[in-house]
Amino acid sequence: MGIFVVFEGPDGSGKSTACQAVYDHYRAQGLRVLHSREPGGTPIGEMIRQILLDPKNKAMGLRTEALLYAASRAQHVEEKIRPFLEEGGLVLSERYVFSSLVYQGMARGLGLEGVQAINDFAIQGVKADLTLYLDPGEASSFHRILDRDLDRLELEGEDFNQGVRAHYMVLAQQKRNEMTFIDATLPKDQVAQACIDAIEEKRREKK
Amino acid sequence: MGIFVVFEGPDGSGKSTACQAVYDHYRAQGLRVLHSREPGGTPIGEMIRQILLDPKNKAMGLRTEALLYAASRAQHVEEKIRPFLEEGGLVLSERYVFSSLVYQGMARGLGLEGVQAINDFAIQGVKADLTLYLDPGEASSFHRILDRDLDRLELEGEDFNQGVRAHYMVLAQQKRNEMTFIDATLPKDQVAQACIDAIEEKRREKK
Repeated sequence: MGIFVVFEGPDGSGKSTACQAVYDHYRAQGLRVLHSREPGGTPIGEMIRQILLDPKNKAMGLRTEALLYAASRAQHVEEKIRPFLEEGGLVLSERYVFSSLVYQGMARGLGLEGVQAINDFAIQGVKADLTLYLDPGEASSFHRILDRDLDRLELEGEDFNQGVRAHYMVLAQQKRNEMTFIDATLPKDQVAQACIDAIEEKRREKK
Repeated sequence: MGIFVVFEGPDGSGKSTACQAVYDHYRAQGLRVLHSREPGGTPIGEMIRQILLDPKNKAMGLRTEALLYAASRAQHVEEKIRPFLEEGGLVLSERYVFSSLVYQGMARGLGLEGVQAINDFAIQGVKADLTLYLDPGEASSFHRILDRDLDRLELEGEDFNQGVRAHYMVLAQQKRNEMTFIDATLPKDQVAQACIDAIEEKRREKK
């Protein structure tokens, strides 16, 4: 079995940038490595993602949203993550189950238990070996995404995003054995190096 | 609270026809009545339905499929069924949770427990007051849909559909207090009348 690494954190915390740098690092070493993201990651997942992020879908219920994320994740596991791990590869995913616990379970108030239940159904026991929580620090990280067109979730703005950071911190406390804290206020190359260091430690453990 | 009636049965068992006749009957009496169907029933549900039924989506995993049905159902409950029931209306839905138990839990082999869990999350306690199981009898009901273009699920053909009927029979046995058996091999007007009789009995109970 390969190694499954998840990058977590609020929007704008630098997940994509760090994940890309880690991907480039391991590709240059000739490793089999997959860079993916949620929601999406597969053609069916991308179709689901379109429904989730469409600014027109204001009537979307909280439970619908949580189930669509879980559906996208189920397809991601089935079609990409599990086959890649079975071939011994290194999987890097932007977001996974913890994102749903934070956004739907905590920020939206659905509760951790129900959200965990639908995700248990979705992932068939495929858990992350390592979850890197990229923390944007006290100051808002929201300015990092203000130069892009905003989707339905981002439109909710800075207060929501700051709340999300607080929920991540609570979850990181509760799951300190499962999440590794990364200070994402550092320069990009140092953030990437901290991620690589954590992955190297996990690779040594798994050997 | 109003009354929530679900029509269940394999493809081709006559759910749409019976549901429409029942709808017309109560509309003529001036009742507030809603005729809906799953998957779909809302604009977001219809978007999900497109993903589910698209013949191109052959890579769809079983769990993805089950979660998409649950997502469509969650939206249906949130946006239409619950508000309509709260206003005292009569809701008629083609398919609901039992369809997922039969198709995903039994025919697809995911098991009843997991499928029930994601549906419990989806429906927020909004259960059918009456489920009418339209049984197509021993002979295949499949010829009834052969004059239409087939979607991804229907393409699986007659053997699958016959298996579905057997699963419905097993579930109807297990849940005999929750499902009312309707002989759908009778002429259309008699099928509709049997449905109306069952609904009238439920309406008297609820008064």
